[in-house]
Amino acid sequence: MDRRSFLRTSALGGTAAAAASTLAAPAYAQGKRTLTFVTTWGRGLAGVHDAVMYYADNVTAMTDGQLIIDVKAAGELVGAFEVFDAVTSGQADMYHGADYYFVGQHPGYGFFTAVPFGMTAQEIVNWYYQDGGKELHDELGQIFGLKSFLAGNTGAQSGGWFAKEIKGPEDFVGLKFRMPGLGGKALGKLGASVQNLPGSEVYQALASGAIDGTEWIGPWADEKAGFQEITKIYYTAGFHEPGAALSVAFNRDVFDSLTPAQQKICEEAAAAAHQWNLSLFLANNSAALVHDENLGDPLYKKIYDSAMASMKKSSAWIKLSDGAYTRQRDRVLGG
Amino acid sequence: MDRRSFLRTSALGGTAAAAASTLAAPAYAQGKRTLTFVTTWGRGLAGVHDAVMYYADNVTAMTDGQLIIDVKAAGELVGAFEVFDAVTSGQADMYHGADYYFVGQHPGYGFFTAVPFGMTAQEIVNWYYQDGGKELHDELGQIFGLKSFLAGNTGAQSGGWFAKEIKGPEDFVGLKFRMPGLGGKALGKLGASVQNLPGSEVYQALASGAIDGTEWIGPWADEKAGFQEITKIYYTAGFHEPGAALSVAFNRDVFDSLTPAQQKICEEAAAAAHQWNLSLFLANNSAALVHDENLGDPLYKKIYDSAMASMKKSSAWIKLSDGAYTRQRDRVLGG
Repeated sequence: MDRRSFLRTSALGGTAAAAASTLAAPAYAQGKRTLTFVTTWGRGLAGVHDAVMYYADNVTAMTDGQLIIDVKAAGELVGAFEVFDAVTSGQADMYHGADYYFVGQHPGYGFFTAVPFGMTAQEIVNWYYQDGGKELHDELGQIFGLKSFLAGNTGAQSGGWFAKEIKGPEDFVGLKFRMPGLGGKALGKLGASVQNLPGSEVYQALASGAIDGTEWIGPWADEKAGFQEITKIYYTAGFHEPGAALSVAFNRDVFDSLTPAQQKICEEAAAAAHQWNLSLFLANNSAALVHDENLGDPLYKKIYDSAMASMKKSSAWIKLSDGAYTRQRDRVLGG
Repeated sequence: MDRRSFLRTSALGGTAAAAASTLAAPAYAQGKRTLTFVTTWGRGLAGVHDAVMYYADNVTAMTDGQLIIDVKAAGELVGAFEVFDAVTSGQADMYHGADYYFVGQHPGYGFFTAVPFGMTAQEIVNWYYQDGGKELHDELGQIFGLKSFLAGNTGAQSGGWFAKEIKGPEDFVGLKFRMPGLGGKALGKLGASVQNLPGSEVYQALASGAIDGTEWIGPWADEKAGFQEITKIYYTAGFHEPGAALSVAFNRDVFDSLTPAQQKICEEAAAAAHQWNLSLFLANNSAALVHDENLGDPLYKKIYDSAMASMKKSSAWIKLSDGAYTRQRDRVLGG
């Protein structure tokens, strides 16, 4: 995409947020309550900022406007990586982010986003809702005064953008590469100089040569971020984030002060946001394919065409990413 | 499972429902409203009845008890396949079921559950939320006075239980087999005598010899239903339902009479139920595997163990079902 139009969109988004913030004050007016929602994402970052807005808008609608969510993107109140401290200290009420940014606070947070050769998006969902993942997220949050829920997922991420071709492990030696979490630690072991930059700073770092390459998310979000304007070598199906989950985390005292119905809305809206956000990434990651059928009933044909087009569009990417990934995982883990 | 304990559970469930129904009356007391929720599932059928209860409980919690959902399982108010007419006619307020039971009302309903060689669970989600599926579900509902949302998914279904081994297409000739939707039509073309029985009647039909075999859902739900007590030949990875979605459908006038916040809660609770229900089936379909690590931090180890165990448990089935399915689909559709 055009870099200038991206920046223009960002600026407009900022104005809208400032307006919303003004309207929301004062807190508690007419029984309404405003929650300050800081995020690790630059305003307008495709997919991840969309997850924030989807969640915020739904919570407000489901509470009949009683909870107004004042979204502050990275840098608007605190920096991207400062959201954890802002919410635990009570400076902000809640954050949205990738919890693996906070492995310094506790290494267990890595599992609530992604670990190398770890779970796919569906496997994380299975763990979270059926096999105790959600309860462990809560137990971890108790240490820091947080109440956390999964609220987004990027699907299988790509290996990323490189200034030069990677032909073997030795090509990572000295490479200045942006990759957060345990994936970055693994590249560090190979000799890479690993950087952990927030999304909103990656384009500039790549353009200036401060880094030689970066992973970000996948074809759709990466294109929106404009990395193809700077470097042309792109590897799909990374080992590092096979289905990266995103989280919303409330200050625990703030969460406890909500009514039981509001608490349940905040919890279920997060679950709905996780599913919706994953579909947003996956549906956009594949090229559109058209399937032409000439069936009788017009509405049936419309449904058939829509379903087939979506399936073909989605499956191309899913086969490319999940297939390659699970083959590699089996090779590594012997699964 | 023991067949008698299954029946005992059903009977207890029925008593609980009768009690809830009594408590709920009169409707509209103290601003509260009771909605009658009929389903295509026998009370206690694993996974599918669980989806109903998850949805009903969450809607009540999220509306602070303003919407009380009076669940009537198949046969308690109307028969399994009568729920569509009951809700369109206003006899009941909402139903939960597999919409492909209603292809007689409109063939497009097949796509909102599953069609042979069609979409996996994730691909249906992608279509529904990003590529117009949800809007088409709504357009279809307008014809019948319904407001529908996806609210459950079984994942890839198994081929089913057979009294005799199937070695070729000729073995379907004259076979009395239970399979709904377009999958059943396909077996009918091979010469099978296809039955479309609701879930709660399948065990008895199989036990009495009224049918020679059945597909139901997958390893977990099928075992709970007890089919392994009657027939021992089981085929995984059926062609017919690669990710069968379930739906909740409201009488449209009833839905329109809800407040905007209640409407949004009914919509987002359905999305959350879809994701939760799919994880319920997938997490239970694989055998438990234990991964033994001796890591330092006790909470980290607990998280690591829980995540790894869930992944291995899930992936065995996912590889068996989705892998085999997508290979077959590629063969058939040339994808």
